[in-house]
Amino acid sequence: MPRWEHGSQERLKQAAMELFDEQGFEGTSAVQIAQRAGVTTRTFFRYFPDKQSILFVDADLLRAALLQGIHDAPDVTEPLAVVVRALVDFDWEGLGPRESQRRRDAMIRSNPELLERELNKQQQMSDAFGYALRQRGVEPPAAELAARVGIQVFQASYLEWLAADGETDLATVVNASMSTLAAIMPAVTRLT
Amino acid sequence: MPRWEHGSQERLKQAAMELFDEQGFEGTSAVQIAQRAGVTTRTFFRYFPDKQSILFVDADLLRAALLQGIHDAPDVTEPLAVVVRALVDFDWEGLGPRESQRRRDAMIRSNPELLERELNKQQQMSDAFGYALRQRGVEPPAAELAARVGIQVFQASYLEWLAADGETDLATVVNASMSTLAAIMPAVTRLT
Repeated sequence: MPRWEHGSQERLKQAAMELFDEQGFEGTSAVQIAQRAGVTTRTFFRYFPDKQSILFVDADLLRAALLQGIHDAPDVTEPLAVVVRALVDFDWEGLGPRESQRRRDAMIRSNPELLERELNKQQQMSDAFGYALRQRGVEPPAAELAARVGIQVFQASYLEWLAADGETDLATVVNASMSTLAAIMPAVTRLT
Repeated sequence: MPRWEHGSQERLKQAAMELFDEQGFEGTSAVQIAQRAGVTTRTFFRYFPDKQSILFVDADLLRAALLQGIHDAPDVTEPLAVVVRALVDFDWEGLGPRESQRRRDAMIRSNPELLERELNKQQQMSDAFGYALRQRGVEPPAAELAARVGIQVFQASYLEWLAADGETDLATVVNASMSTLAAIMPAVTRLT
């Protein structure tokens, strides 16, 4: 992709986040985003099918990086640890400052349509993780649970981290969540 | 609610499931469902805002029963077990034969709009469970994880149960999933 094109995409993202902040997600149109970014509306639609997509543009990047993490894990005898580690090791700071991640999260949570899309992405991620673990030789039920539970542990930690002050680091919160999970595992797993 | 009204709702559900089966979800209209159920279209819309809602009509019932289960649990020192037990103890057979639950699930998974709605319901359920556990005095991080992880353990088990033959019982699958989860807990929870 020529540099100027990459530049347009970045500028569109930046402009969208500014406008969403200033006048809300619903109140912002694709035309306004293009204007603020200094590109034509046609250019906007070359990058994004709609304004929603701007909020999810990093998701594919994230997914590819995480699957690579599972693929490259030195061993998979502890598949839950593999999933959680892949999630923690991702360069979350690279997605922008915590404050902008916080705003993105608040925006998604306050809009049912965006929330559904976010949950859908999580589901797809869980399916992909389960598949990647099976490819590495993990038994299907263990792969499935490691993917599902790993994402939940991470998600709970990520939200706690977003809400926390600037000092707290994500890995610390995730370690604490893993300890909490270990502590709530029932002594006897035969429940009924 | 007078008996005939309850009867209409049941008939509408029954008619909808039949038509969805025969001609697909997309190919079925509210008008056709009302006709098959022997009620007016107006009656249809008195019960359901749209045909999607028919597939989710049991969700509120389920949620209320599950929250009651958490509320009534004799103790909550093992909150994950409380959540999973509430889910297993629900009268799943009461929602209809496994075959019709299987068809409902396949229908939801093949329609992105329905899947998003289903995921949304799961998210709301998780929030409600977390809240109910906190009300019972469980620490917030443990409550949050127990709710999220319990739902995932159950969901993975439920799908396995749906796919299994007629002999397998849901509680057996859930017990196996809990053992698998215990087996994949990392020996050391400090991951990074």
